[in-house]
Amino acid sequence: MIDLMICNAQIITVDTQRRVFENGAIAIEGNKILEVGKSGELMQKYTARRVLDATHFIVMPGLINCHMHLPQVIMRGVNDNVEVMDKLKYYIWPIQGSYDEEDAYISTQLGLLEMIKAGTTAFLGTGLHPRYGIGAIAQAVIDSGIRGVISKYVMDQTGYALDKSALHPGLWENGEESLRMACDLIENWHGKGEGRLQVWFSPRSVGGVSEELFRRVSDLAKHYGVGITAHWAEVQNNADYTLERFGLLPAEYAQKVGMVGKNVTLVHGIYFEDRELDILAATQTNICHCPVCNAKLAMGTAKVTQMLHKGVNVCLGNDGMPVNNTADMFREMRTALLLQRNLYRDPLYPTAAEAIEMATINGAKGILAEDVVGSIETGKHADIILVNTRKPHLIPIHDPTSAIVWAANGEDVDTVIIDGKIIMENRHVLTMNEEDILEQAERRKHKILEQAGVKVNHVWKLQ
Amino acid sequence: MIDLMICNAQIITVDTQRRVFENGAIAIEGNKILEVGKSGELMQKYTARRVLDATHFIVMPGLINCHMHLPQVIMRGVNDNVEVMDKLKYYIWPIQGSYDEEDAYISTQLGLLEMIKAGTTAFLGTGLHPRYGIGAIAQAVIDSGIRGVISKYVMDQTGYALDKSALHPGLWENGEESLRMACDLIENWHGKGEGRLQVWFSPRSVGGVSEELFRRVSDLAKHYGVGITAHWAEVQNNADYTLERFGLLPAEYAQKVGMVGKNVTLVHGIYFEDRELDILAATQTNICHCPVCNAKLAMGTAKVTQMLHKGVNVCLGNDGMPVNNTADMFREMRTALLLQRNLYRDPLYPTAAEAIEMATINGAKGILAEDVVGSIETGKHADIILVNTRKPHLIPIHDPTSAIVWAANGEDVDTVIIDGKIIMENRHVLTMNEEDILEQAERRKHKILEQAGVKVNHVWKLQ
Repeated sequence: MIDLMICNAQIITVDTQRRVFENGAIAIEGNKILEVGKSGELMQKYTARRVLDATHFIVMPGLINCHMHLPQVIMRGVNDNVEVMDKLKYYIWPIQGSYDEEDAYISTQLGLLEMIKAGTTAFLGTGLHPRYGIGAIAQAVIDSGIRGVISKYVMDQTGYALDKSALHPGLWENGEESLRMACDLIENWHGKGEGRLQVWFSPRSVGGVSEELFRRVSDLAKHYGVGITAHWAEVQNNADYTLERFGLLPAEYAQKVGMVGKNVTLVHGIYFEDRELDILAATQTNICHCPVCNAKLAMGTAKVTQMLHKGVNVCLGNDGMPVNNTADMFREMRTALLLQRNLYRDPLYPTAAEAIEMATINGAKGILAEDVVGSIETGKHADIILVNTRKPHLIPIHDPTSAIVWAANGEDVDTVIIDGKIIMENRHVLTMNEEDILEQAERRKHKILEQAGVKVNHVWKLQ
Repeated sequence: MIDLMICNAQIITVDTQRRVFENGAIAIEGNKILEVGKSGELMQKYTARRVLDATHFIVMPGLINCHMHLPQVIMRGVNDNVEVMDKLKYYIWPIQGSYDEEDAYISTQLGLLEMIKAGTTAFLGTGLHPRYGIGAIAQAVIDSGIRGVISKYVMDQTGYALDKSALHPGLWENGEESLRMACDLIENWHGKGEGRLQVWFSPRSVGGVSEELFRRVSDLAKHYGVGITAHWAEVQNNADYTLERFGLLPAEYAQKVGMVGKNVTLVHGIYFEDRELDILAATQTNICHCPVCNAKLAMGTAKVTQMLHKGVNVCLGNDGMPVNNTADMFREMRTALLLQRNLYRDPLYPTAAEAIEMATINGAKGILAEDVVGSIETGKHADIILVNTRKPHLIPIHDPTSAIVWAANGEDVDTVIIDGKIIMENRHVLTMNEEDILEQAERRKHKILEQAGVKVNHVWKLQ
């Protein structure tokens, strides 16, 4: 008697052979996948306490969002139509720099709920600050049932790249203090929630962190066996900074200060020259591409096509809700392809299959969990989503990978399984109180603007 | 006593003053909008037979899809990852050229259902052929309750631009015959369904139509008071053709043969040089931009930013489901902005407001219905959608235009009103049998491939 069986499913496994089953089944025991195979065979072989009939569903690995600012979710869509550095300086930083713990907590709850409802089963969160009440955030992640990385900013300089005056005082931190707190967070929380919660370091961008501090973070990450995530080469200003100050291109500087390697996920990575991609590939550094945010804010286009050709591990992220504005990984998959094809005028690459890899197995590498999740195969933890295809925009399906990338939305996800547990069923999240979270988030929107002294711009004037 | 009142709504009117109401109401009498104003005032002034409480909804004009191939919907996602001309030659044309009337009818039903469920209240359909059973298609459009234009191909040459051998024999038509049938269709069906059905001409692309036939279509459209839609300057081959054969750029050739004017909607319009945009603006010719399809197939990027600056009326279309793969106008709005901003590196333009204009009032111009629909204002027909914002990816809302363009999906549309009638409520379409249509469409997918002798490519091999 096993715990759970999913049968009669179209399965996109993303396993090492990249098998796709027309009528497949998945046997799950405890939190792990016991076997994947044809539905008829597995239904004969096992008896399960719970059987999910996945007729009309595409079943695939849960999606992995490798860049998420949980405390920014309740700033969704604030003052769109602003250049990225201005948006940070005049809106995002002042609002976050005025947060109290409850603001950050409610934002976190909304973000977790949104991700689960869109089929995201694991995330790499960045940018926590002591004023957000980090313990409560860690506990919220665990209670939601999601798999996730949280990480605390580390910094010892107040500038942002060449523009030194930028960071809001409410977000300043002292070097020793910020590092000590990051280590405490790891010691207290890393591995909690039956191992689903990881705690990493997130040093601020170049300009906010000294060479020495980057190196100490690198050493400490090895000491603790955790990862590092940092925004890197996301604006021209950033690339100019390393060149002007150190005579190095962004990836060269990253290599110099220990910000490369399998346990490092650099975010955006737009301003890399071709020869820098070789450094990233050789060091197995992960690059998290955020296509919707990059295009919306006209930040430039990451060289995803070339990165994939050179063997760089490219994963995908939603980034923050003031810049995106949703945590829907289906949208990132589709937009990543649209932008690359449009720019390089290639109707064939990247493929839908490559987009699915970026959002699943590449993402698993990006959160140091390649052996744990990212594909549906024996021995991996059961992080699985069921996508309802019985909808007018998804019928007929000639190829399930095409349907997932080119047609589906996060709202088509019906059921979410994380670590073998059913977390969402029939779009009802079992671990959270959806109505209560939505109500609180909507009510809080005016407070966070008022306490920061920020006014909302309207595209058209309100009556 | 009026027929219908929508109250407590955030309303994006797209009226001449571009008003947005925080707590507005719309009074509807018969098929027309009687008044738009503040909720409190209108609720005092009118008593209505039916009141829709739109708390937590954004209410806006129904979206207008200005390029739709209804008979292609059941080819959704067939053999993605093929260059556009190869896709037409080896997949789309052979499959359509082997259709029987039932294939086209079921495809049409699925397309109508999909559009309504995504908040599209009017469409400009193209490319009907006698083998599809046009009368049944016209009737299906009327029965669905949607507002729409259908149009029959007109042609007297079998080539497609420079590649003369391309068109599938199953789709060939004789010049006189194709024109006569198009006129018959107009005489029999134009204005039916209480005026909701229009019938236009759709001449095939350059290469398929002689100069003389283009001119006759232009004259006949004036005679009947109907519009013309044609694919134009959508591939380089097309622009090369007019230059090589006639020494004219695509817009110059369009002007020469009568394919410009207020009643003309040219589709794609990618290969226009800057000076051609002046011709389009001066003649008030409508350009239908199809961003998702253009980027997916790497067709090139229409100069939407420059067109808008020069005053060209740019509307949006989904195009066919083998190339898109969904009829979701929210996606087109968002993708249009992402592509323009990414290409021209401008984080401000086009704005979310401009995207909404393209999908509503500009679309109304594109279907020759500017006085009828495209905005919510007194005297216009009530084509209105209610978007449910009580969802994690739409909360909080700081600005409703931003929420619609940057966050919403077609699946967030809860209620659709067309010509004053509630066509969809709580996502249940009242005029169609959804389950039956989905079942028939899914079952038919193998038949259409087999009868055309087309094999499906799979991105990853099926087990």
